[in-house]
Amino acid sequence: MKKWLLILFVILIYNSVSAEDGYRLWLRYNTIDNPALLQQYRQQITSINCPVDDGKLVAANQELQTGLSGLLGKKVPAQPAIINGAVLLGLPERSPVIRKLVADSALAHLGDEGFIIRTVMYEGKNITLITANKEAGILYGVFHFLRLMQTQQPIRQLSITSAPKIKIRLLNHWDNLNRTVERGYAGSSIWDWQRLPGYIDQRYIDYARANASIGINGTVLTNVNANAIILTDEWLQKIAALANAFRPYNIKVYLTARFSAPVEIGKLKTADPLNEEVRKWWKDKTDEIYKYIPDFGGFLVKANSEGQPGPQNYNRTHADGANMLADAVAPHGGIIMWRAFVYSNETPEDRFKQAYNDFKPLDGQFRKNVLVQVKNGPIDFQPREPFHPLFGAMPQTPLMMEYQLTQEYLGFATHLVYMAPLFKEVLDADTHAKNNSTVAQIVDGTTDGHTLSGMAGVSNIGSDINWTGHPFGQANWYTLGRLAWDNTLTSAQIANEWLRQTFTNKSAFVDTVQKLMLASREIMVNYMTPLGLHHIMGYGHHYGPAPWYNKAPRADWNPVYFHKADSIGIGFNRTATGSNALAQYQPAVRQQFEELATCPEAFLLWFHHVPWDYKMHSGKTLWETLCDKYYSGVDSVRWIQRSWNGMKNYIDAERFSEVKQLLAIQEQEAVWWRNACLLYFQTFSNKPIPARYEKPDHTLAYYEGLEFPYAPH
Amino acid sequence: MKKWLLILFVILIYNSVSAEDGYRLWLRYNTIDNPALLQQYRQQITSINCPVDDGKLVAANQELQTGLSGLLGKKVPAQPAIINGAVLLGLPERSPVIRKLVADSALAHLGDEGFIIRTVMYEGKNITLITANKEAGILYGVFHFLRLMQTQQPIRQLSITSAPKIKIRLLNHWDNLNRTVERGYAGSSIWDWQRLPGYIDQRYIDYARANASIGINGTVLTNVNANAIILTDEWLQKIAALANAFRPYNIKVYLTARFSAPVEIGKLKTADPLNEEVRKWWKDKTDEIYKYIPDFGGFLVKANSEGQPGPQNYNRTHADGANMLADAVAPHGGIIMWRAFVYSNETPEDRFKQAYNDFKPLDGQFRKNVLVQVKNGPIDFQPREPFHPLFGAMPQTPLMMEYQLTQEYLGFATHLVYMAPLFKEVLDADTHAKNNSTVAQIVDGTTDGHTLSGMAGVSNIGSDINWTGHPFGQANWYTLGRLAWDNTLTSAQIANEWLRQTFTNKSAFVDTVQKLMLASREIMVNYMTPLGLHHIMGYGHHYGPAPWYNKAPRADWNPVYFHKADSIGIGFNRTATGSNALAQYQPAVRQQFEELATCPEAFLLWFHHVPWDYKMHSGKTLWETLCDKYYSGVDSVRWIQRSWNGMKNYIDAERFSEVKQLLAIQEQEAVWWRNACLLYFQTFSNKPIPARYEKPDHTLAYYEGLEFPYAPH
Repeated sequence: MKKWLLILFVILIYNSVSAEDGYRLWLRYNTIDNPALLQQYRQQITSINCPVDDGKLVAANQELQTGLSGLLGKKVPAQPAIINGAVLLGLPERSPVIRKLVADSALAHLGDEGFIIRTVMYEGKNITLITANKEAGILYGVFHFLRLMQTQQPIRQLSITSAPKIKIRLLNHWDNLNRTVERGYAGSSIWDWQRLPGYIDQRYIDYARANASIGINGTVLTNVNANAIILTDEWLQKIAALANAFRPYNIKVYLTARFSAPVEIGKLKTADPLNEEVRKWWKDKTDEIYKYIPDFGGFLVKANSEGQPGPQNYNRTHADGANMLADAVAPHGGIIMWRAFVYSNETPEDRFKQAYNDFKPLDGQFRKNVLVQVKNGPIDFQPREPFHPLFGAMPQTPLMMEYQLTQEYLGFATHLVYMAPLFKEVLDADTHAKNNSTVAQIVDGTTDGHTLSGMAGVSNIGSDINWTGHPFGQANWYTLGRLAWDNTLTSAQIANEWLRQTFTNKSAFVDTVQKLMLASREIMVNYMTPLGLHHIMGYGHHYGPAPWYNKAPRADWNPVYFHKADSIGIGFNRTATGSNALAQYQPAVRQQFEELATCPEAFLLWFHHVPWDYKMHSGKTLWETLCDKYYSGVDSVRWIQRSWNGMKNYIDAERFSEVKQLLAIQEQEAVWWRNACLLYFQTFSNKPIPARYEKPDHTLAYYEGLEFPYAPH
Repeated sequence: MKKWLLILFVILIYNSVSAEDGYRLWLRYNTIDNPALLQQYRQQITSINCPVDDGKLVAANQELQTGLSGLLGKKVPAQPAIINGAVLLGLPERSPVIRKLVADSALAHLGDEGFIIRTVMYEGKNITLITANKEAGILYGVFHFLRLMQTQQPIRQLSITSAPKIKIRLLNHWDNLNRTVERGYAGSSIWDWQRLPGYIDQRYIDYARANASIGINGTVLTNVNANAIILTDEWLQKIAALANAFRPYNIKVYLTARFSAPVEIGKLKTADPLNEEVRKWWKDKTDEIYKYIPDFGGFLVKANSEGQPGPQNYNRTHADGANMLADAVAPHGGIIMWRAFVYSNETPEDRFKQAYNDFKPLDGQFRKNVLVQVKNGPIDFQPREPFHPLFGAMPQTPLMMEYQLTQEYLGFATHLVYMAPLFKEVLDADTHAKNNSTVAQIVDGTTDGHTLSGMAGVSNIGSDINWTGHPFGQANWYTLGRLAWDNTLTSAQIANEWLRQTFTNKSAFVDTVQKLMLASREIMVNYMTPLGLHHIMGYGHHYGPAPWYNKAPRADWNPVYFHKADSIGIGFNRTATGSNALAQYQPAVRQQFEELATCPEAFLLWFHHVPWDYKMHSGKTLWETLCDKYYSGVDSVRWIQRSWNGMKNYIDAERFSEVKQLLAIQEQEAVWWRNACLLYFQTFSNKPIPARYEKPDHTLAYYEGLEFPYAPH
């Protein structure tokens, strides 16, 4: 026996070099490496008791088995009898034991997706129960329970009740039908359209598991720059196959609707949303979709924006367009997410203001099953933006938050930037629209009593083995889900639990890396766009700095439009003496931003054209402060590098080396941003970079001459 | 101790669920699952003895450690002393022991890459030595030794000498600078250009290991439809980073040269190969490349073909073009691979004949460091082609074989087709140019005494986790390397060793699956293009059947050009009464093909327009036989499915399910091919499909109406 054990043991050692290639994300379920805790967990958890059901608990049951077996390092058996240490899964309506143990009142506020986890004594046995009103809640409860163990939390006396703050929690994939991904930096699309519907890649299942584990309950599969072909029969079969794969994980599929589809694939002469034929076409098309996918989620629409067709082509409003689609999906319980990211080709108006100008007047005109999906800020996913002025301005309309996980403006998949602080900064902002009207409260429906609410993240997922290209890109996907479930979580909490699950529970590692994650976004702002600068990146591909660029076919695609540097100063005057975009905010917000003295430095150049010699609160001039910020950004990247180098012994060699290499690139590119921007702005300020700083190693002409015709875009 | 062991044991069990996702290819090194053999191997192998060298044996040493530790299920220590059971690695010049044990004469025929593996007694100790003239040989010897163990061969009394038959053994990547892959069906390019040179993906190392393990010693990184930008400074740095990653594995990098680069990036007015400025530009550019990559391999060129620029634009010959580049790389030891895949836009000549017409007259005019790279057949990688008539026709020129691993015409990455029989069929063909002039002997240099020789496979590799999309696509990559090393290996041998390493040594599995692999190519020919049909696939993307297609901008891109079906019969008359392409073969070959009676049925419609009522050797008519072949093809796919279903208990669930799903698609598509082709050809033959066969489930109009605007291409 001992010899047999030994042989098996050595076999296992050498077959268990399971590569830490990042594929497993935060669902690694490695056996607890703290022997005392392992012992304790094993005493607490001995078996799984899951009633025979109609198949809707299979995913939860299976995940629990996989997770517990991994974490406890032994098979945790399914047990029809409730024994000491059982984990009991089930709906009250199907489990008399749970009915007895959980009061109706406790279930009343869980909704369809919330759950209860409790440690209870039952007939002298210590058991853990996970219950909910619907199977989806149990699935989320299982993932929560596994998370507690993966992060090595106490589980002896649990009494947890949790329900999502937000109803629609989505990824938005900007994936095209040719398997490219717009603004994707992690390989090609994971949707292998060519082999769908026949081939269900294991990746689809693992995608669904990962999403379910963080509460994401839907996915928009296709690019907002939409293609009508996706709505044809052949493609709907592919979509249905994905929907089938995701359904056990409570994930609905949604599609983007190309507004001109009735013309392009329906052979109609118009796509006018008030035309009866058009309305019928969409109704029929929608009925067809629901035949394939009975729980189809609905449509996301980008209309009359950046060349996409929309209702304005027919002199109709966004509400007309959204309502037509809303009427088509309403009988099936579907929703429409209508994007507010619009700006007109013709209007010379400050781009900041255009979404508000277009949408605010439509408040109250949308159907009940329409959400208006608003980007976190008024321009376009910059490293820092003030909150979008539509938040708080459309009380009768549920506003859905749109974040961008893919790092279009944040260093592609090469820079380490943890986005939770960016997301939270916006959520925590007070719109002053009413009492209790932070952006978080607007979005989750608290402020205006909406029951429909939503939050979406533009996906950073691709075919790279580790899903997101940068190992830390996974943290942003993770954050989106966790914040959509509970917008009161702090950035630190989310980073902490992600690190523990994804890398290790060793505190020397977690403490250090959590610190650098939390600092990373501000560091990026400093080396890219400090003090409220925005949209000064390379044209088209958006790679690297190009504040000098002014050759775009429209003014508001040019960096010079946004920074407005001249011999006097720099920044976009959006006060009453300028574009007056600030008038779109509530007076309290407006006042704070409008006064130079009270405007936070972080937003200074968003709202003011500020003289180079302007004295900041510190007493230094604007120019000096700009230099300080850029240099500090680069220095901080070097600090991250040093911190990371100290982590070598705590984690696997593969991911350690990946991050180390990527940080080296980030440092080079931070230097590039700093040098290019300061040399360029210096041509206006005519002031020296302080002598204490390292000199730029190239000339401005060198930076201006760089071209990247094949940068991903 | 026992308790500690037990705990570790269970931990390992549950962490060792190493997913069989296909990433590890044939280098899995799982511990030998036959206890007796494991015991025996462990006795035979106890340690590794590798002399301190100048770093050039690191890869071999490391692979041996990884491989042996995995296979033996225990760490195999490095040992400075030679003990019983040592594996001794080293060059004779650095190891006195090896010098003593291996005679100079034994080393004399190994060349730079061959190796010796021998079991010997040394001072009473039983040891295994792996030696060679150069470090590369030792690397190959290590991989050979590990292969013996992975395939569970006896290793007690080894006496192996092996050297490659072919000098240049390459993959050709058709990878673009935007990370798409032309004719790629496995995700995006593994070359993550955006993050090169700073980021060396673990995938690059594993790519190099996999290639080295099968003897591939070079890789052309970029598409033959070339982009001059790759030759600019920024991109050469990326190439150099890859070259550095591959160098320890004896893999050289090559690039494709865009013939018009001197104009496009050199700002010259011409790319005329006889122009002095142009010649100097290429010389300088080449010198620059070699500064970055001292062992750069050279260029692969597609010129004056399908719109690519070339020397004919300046009324020069292919030889003029090739020689100009050859002169530029010659001082550095580089080579030029000049593709013979040319056919003119203007010439109405049978496309079959054009490469021969262009190149044969140039024999003798190429520099010594030029290979002319010839596709296996005269058209374009069809499921079956006769050997290319250039083989045997250019005795003074080394002809390099170009195969296509990516399944452009073979069902994309969805059909299971093992290509070794296709490759071997061509290699074994006798050109009758001289004595000893099979295609294999022409290509390996035997026939004409060339020392430069080459074989290339157009890569089927992409960013999908399992590299090739279809798990069995890996077998074709494997085959290319093994056949380039030793063109006498049989298809069965290669399939056998690949299966054992990639899946399992269990004979019930290996025997069954080897059988279906060996049959798979003929099965595909039967359901796609039986009896010598060719080039009848969908236009542009090449997906699915479209024998009716006749709208291409040039005649010889149309299926109707190739099958020439009419009321009388079907097939391309290439005899003297037709295009007379057969005149390009030696008389013995020509004769066999030219007579209907002697022409093998497999090539019938390649060379003859045959009446529908023509009596085949079987006594059946051509039409009946065509029907039989198509139906037999589908039936055989169903046989593969049944065979595979029986394999469930022998291998991992993940790959079992993947292949099962893909076979279901293959079956559907085989039916599609059969039905579409027979219904279409029936409009000419006016004969029924025999009643015993299942009826096509759609009309011809249905098949003709199918469109695939987003099929990968």
